[in-house]
Amino acid sequence: MPKAHATPVKTSTTRGPQSRSAATRTHILDAAGDLFAQRGYAATSVADICEQAGVTKGAFYYHFASKQQAFLDLRDRWLGPLDAQFTLTRAPGETLPQVLQRIADMAQPIFEAVGGEQRQQVFLELLSAARQDPAILPVMLSPRRKYRILFAKLVRAGVAEGTLRDVDANLAADILVALGFGFVMQSLLDPDGADWARLAQQGIALLMQGLAA
Amino acid sequence: MPKAHATPVKTSTTRGPQSRSAATRTHILDAAGDLFAQRGYAATSVADICEQAGVTKGAFYYHFASKQQAFLDLRDRWLGPLDAQFTLTRAPGETLPQVLQRIADMAQPIFEAVGGEQRQQVFLELLSAARQDPAILPVMLSPRRKYRILFAKLVRAGVAEGTLRDVDANLAADILVALGFGFVMQSLLDPDGADWARLAQQGIALLMQGLAA
Repeated sequence: MPKAHATPVKTSTTRGPQSRSAATRTHILDAAGDLFAQRGYAATSVADICEQAGVTKGAFYYHFASKQQAFLDLRDRWLGPLDAQFTLTRAPGETLPQVLQRIADMAQPIFEAVGGEQRQQVFLELLSAARQDPAILPVMLSPRRKYRILFAKLVRAGVAEGTLRDVDANLAADILVALGFGFVMQSLLDPDGADWARLAQQGIALLMQGLAA
Repeated sequence: MPKAHATPVKTSTTRGPQSRSAATRTHILDAAGDLFAQRGYAATSVADICEQAGVTKGAFYYHFASKQQAFLDLRDRWLGPLDAQFTLTRAPGETLPQVLQRIADMAQPIFEAVGGEQRQQVFLELLSAARQDPAILPVMLSPRRKYRILFAKLVRAGVAEGTLRDVDANLAADILVALGFGFVMQSLLDPDGADWARLAQQGIALLMQGLAA
């Protein structure tokens, strides 16, 4: 769960220190994203990020433990909308196929977020950095486990309520994760190759028809 | 289609120049794969590959137009078994769900091939090189189009013969490609994370049950 989502948004008329802090964090991440995309991860220093963002090193290290942390937080920002969705409670009377479709619909920001080109470059840079730093890839892939557990739980509930066929919930979860992974990776590597958000929505819908009881 | 598959295999008792040439090509690719994985693509020169393989530059350039070509041919080698499968004729009486399952079964070598660790490194290196050379990514992603057309054709035939439900063939093809892409990418980024070959087989089987009429 990215910090930006965990921090409650202030709605008071005067902007308190908390919202200013969140704005600074966003601003630093924007600058880091720009530089990683332009120059590459390795060629970008914390000093460069601070200069680009117009902040002190103290401000940077208040928000991020390291350059790598800022890098990984950029990933969390993309996945944030999906993560937030998972915490939503199920609406009364909503069937499991409807819940899964809602998750697919809400994944749209992941595919649509502005800067497809920049995201592609940052993504390639992240993978490139993973060759030097063996810690990056496991952290990058770690959300899969969370999604897998969640999907398996949802499918199990759907089988129990009788809206899904009696399928192997873990296998169905692996398929949903692989499908989501396939769409997200294609959207990162080939942003203009298709309307990925629409495809993911329709793809889940078709899969749901197949899983429906 | 990789050249190794297009070249007819000689079965004569004396090894002719053609089989020796194919063996040299394989040997050079092995050496290139080792070096790309160890040192990275950028840090590996054609001279390094020749030294490692114990061949002349003339021999290298007889088989590959460039270092990049050798890099891309490594990808073709992994996809080769799948490509070869697509050229097989349909067995008499075989239904479309059976054809698709056979393709999933034959994709096993892609996931199982020895050297998961090396493949992971070469894959990361390829993506890293894509940042410097904009030509790499499109070539790397180009097989998707071929598979998409093939899957759409197969699904259309399945709907026509009545073994598949009346689904949108292009959408079903996009799902099959995304699912395959998701499994292959996960197997490359996280070789030991799961039994990817088994998952892909079972995943396609579950998807087929959903698409079956």
